Amino acid sequence: MDSAFLKELITPAQTKIVMLIIDGLGGLPREPGGKTELETACTPNLDALAAQSALGLTQPAGPGITVGSGPGHLAIFGYDPIEYEIGRGALEALGVDFELGPDDLAARGNFCTVDANGLLVDRRAGRLPTEISRGLAQILRTIDVQGAEYFVEPVKEHRFVFVMRAPGLSAALSETDPLKVGVEPLPVRALQPEAEQSACLLNKFIAQARRLLADKQPANMITLRGFAKLPALPTYSDLYGLKAAAIAVNGMYRGVARLAGMEVLHVDGDTLADEFSALRNRWEDFDFFFVHVKNTDTFGESGDFEGKVGAIEAVDAHIPCLMALEPDVIIVGGDHSSPAVLKSHSWHPVPVLLYSKYVRPDGVTKFGERACLRGSLGILPAKDIMPLALANAGRMIKWGA
Amino acid sequence: MDSAFLKELITPAQTKIVMLIIDGLGGLPREPGGKTELETACTPNLDALAAQSALGLTQPAGPGITVGSGPGHLAIFGYDPIEYEIGRGALEALGVDFELGPDDLAARGNFCTVDANGLLVDRRAGRLPTEISRGLAQILRTIDVQGAEYFVEPVKEHRFVFVMRAPGLSAALSETDPLKVGVEPLPVRALQPEAEQSACLLNKFIAQARRLLADKQPANMITLRGFAKLPALPTYSDLYGLKAAAIAVNGMYRGVARLAGMEVLHVDGDTLADEFSALRNRWEDFDFFFVHVKNTDTFGESGDFEGKVGAIEAVDAHIPCLMALEPDVIIVGGDHSSPAVLKSHSWHPVPVLLYSKYVRPDGVTKFGERACLRGSLGILPAKDIMPLALANAGRMIKWGA
Repeated sequence: MDSAFLKELITPAQTKIVMLIIDGLGGLPREPGGKTELETACTPNLDALAAQSALGLTQPAGPGITVGSGPGHLAIFGYDPIEYEIGRGALEALGVDFELGPDDLAARGNFCTVDANGLLVDRRAGRLPTEISRGLAQILRTIDVQGAEYFVEPVKEHRFVFVMRAPGLSAALSETDPLKVGVEPLPVRALQPEAEQSACLLNKFIAQARRLLADKQPANMITLRGFAKLPALPTYSDLYGLKAAAIAVNGMYRGVARLAGMEVLHVDGDTLADEFSALRNRWEDFDFFFVHVKNTDTFGESGDFEGKVGAIEAVDAHIPCLMALEPDVIIVGGDHSSPAVLKSHSWHPVPVLLYSKYVRPDGVTKFGERACLRGSLGILPAKDIMPLALANAGRMIKWGA
Repeated sequence: MDSAFLKELITPAQTKIVMLIIDGLGGLPREPGGKTELETACTPNLDALAAQSALGLTQPAGPGITVGSGPGHLAIFGYDPIEYEIGRGALEALGVDFELGPDDLAARGNFCTVDANGLLVDRRAGRLPTEISRGLAQILRTIDVQGAEYFVEPVKEHRFVFVMRAPGLSAALSETDPLKVGVEPLPVRALQPEAEQSACLLNKFIAQARRLLADKQPANMITLRGFAKLPALPTYSDLYGLKAAAIAVNGMYRGVARLAGMEVLHVDGDTLADEFSALRNRWEDFDFFFVHVKNTDTFGESGDFEGKVGAIEAVDAHIPCLMALEPDVIIVGGDHSSPAVLKSHSWHPVPVLLYSKYVRPDGVTKFGERACLRGSLGILPAKDIMPLALANAGRMIKWGA
């Protein structure tokens, strides 16, 4: 649905919406005829909630499309994930909790090794320890090329985030990693005329980096790739008139939420209980809360079926805390599926539950993939969840007389 | 989904996909409370396959739209059948296995009867016997109008296919059949400036045809209609990186498959067994096989409910041959419905089954219209089947990080 059309229908209300995203929620059975992770988990609280909810399955970006967490979250937040693409550099920056702004151009950086002739010998500098990488990032931060500000944030091993800040930067740039050894790292080239200035600044930065790192074997050079600016998303406040908060432990999810104009709340600790404490503590301050559960996906991606089952059960145990707050609307869903048997994200639709006093109950009393198939929401694009939530929250007026 | 978007995600794999299209598969019950043709048929093999598959119902071109076999096949092949329209002349040419190229302008031709004043007396020349038609086509082939090559292929009775070949032809042309008697056949007129040359050549051809046929009562004149060029489809190789083959006995299906860049395989005979032999013999040579079953539709269109049931059972009997090849992904579906009670194509969604090791089973163990309604694919556009098949075949990478 067109967001301009939706926006016209928004009306204020004293209601609260909670969107609980269980990362990588959808799964697959371990053996033919078996149950999925969610179907295996003992989830009395989610099942009770399902009995009062409308159920369905969400598709983040279309049939057969497996999405990363960035587009997966944008979709369930109500954005068209294909229209609002988050480039790799920007995602990496969000992942380290870097507060990217509209003037920022981000990239993924690698420390690498070149020989005396400047030819690449190791694209990852022997996957050097994160500790050393941290020191080298400190050195790169001393670089001063007039015309922009520069930020370097270590990620892990040889990887770092690079951000250049100046008005009018463009991401239409070629990458410097030649993806093979025995050749020089490539210069940055502008792929469109408006990127000339950006390319020029970057090449000067890289030249200085080369000089400063010259004696820092094995990490004596850098490569930059995945240049990206943030997509300019209309915010939750603009679109929906919602004062929205995000509760997430991992940087990337905090970053994507910030992109949607959500205020990222402080979480004292990194457990589910800590996240629900933050929710309780700030309950009065917002209309909308996005609460993110990460470890379900981590277990799915590592192929740990039982681990994922346990993680889902841990979420279930917190549902009474959530209900005690008496939200008007609750969404429980996922950004994508991560079946343990595939050890990866997958294209399978994701179970979703929409609770409010005004949903038409569908007579389904379990929360699981097959149960959701019999739900009244059907299989729907993930981005359709928000309009449904807003309607159930009394935040949309009638269209037409 | 945008095909450019999809194309970016395609990755090579050593997997094989079989798309078995049972023409006109969907049906209707004969009497209230009764079963459809597919539900009536005894299909133990398809039912066993369904139990390991995701089921659903496909809509070729939208709710309520009844499609012909051309758009029906384009849709299940993954193309938007409204965007890529195959004109009537082009379809007729494909139907006689004419290998239409990009420089070809095709039309449906009729032999007709005019009186001494050139006024139409019979638009079908008394539906003259195909044998006579064949001889007259031979005469038309002698026509030589400079500026193009001309092809005439008899179809049946008074009908023939006409193809004109030259660079830069346009199909923006009016038809010559006035659709009533007592008037002269119309001249071809250009409907857009770029069609002037085409109109001029066609009128010269028709003038010569009139001269050559003058004494061939009752077929002493021709009309041409349905001028069409082929739509320029991106091929299976371009779009999906698939080396694709088509196994079909009837010309039209071979033609549509060729349009999608499939290699049309030789079938030694015209039975289902012959088609499955061709599949087995060429199994090593391709990634994707389209196998077409025609007679289900023929029975449906002639109102033969029992005949269609039998034809479906015959397909079922060949499923073990298919399974023996161990395809990674199997699609069993149809291009449209052809309920025997309607004696025609219909708009009803078409049962579809998608088998792979990675589908999420939906607990449905029958292949039939009502069973498919409870399947996990839901009711989906036919063109969404290919992305799902590619995902299940491990031929699509994740989108976004």
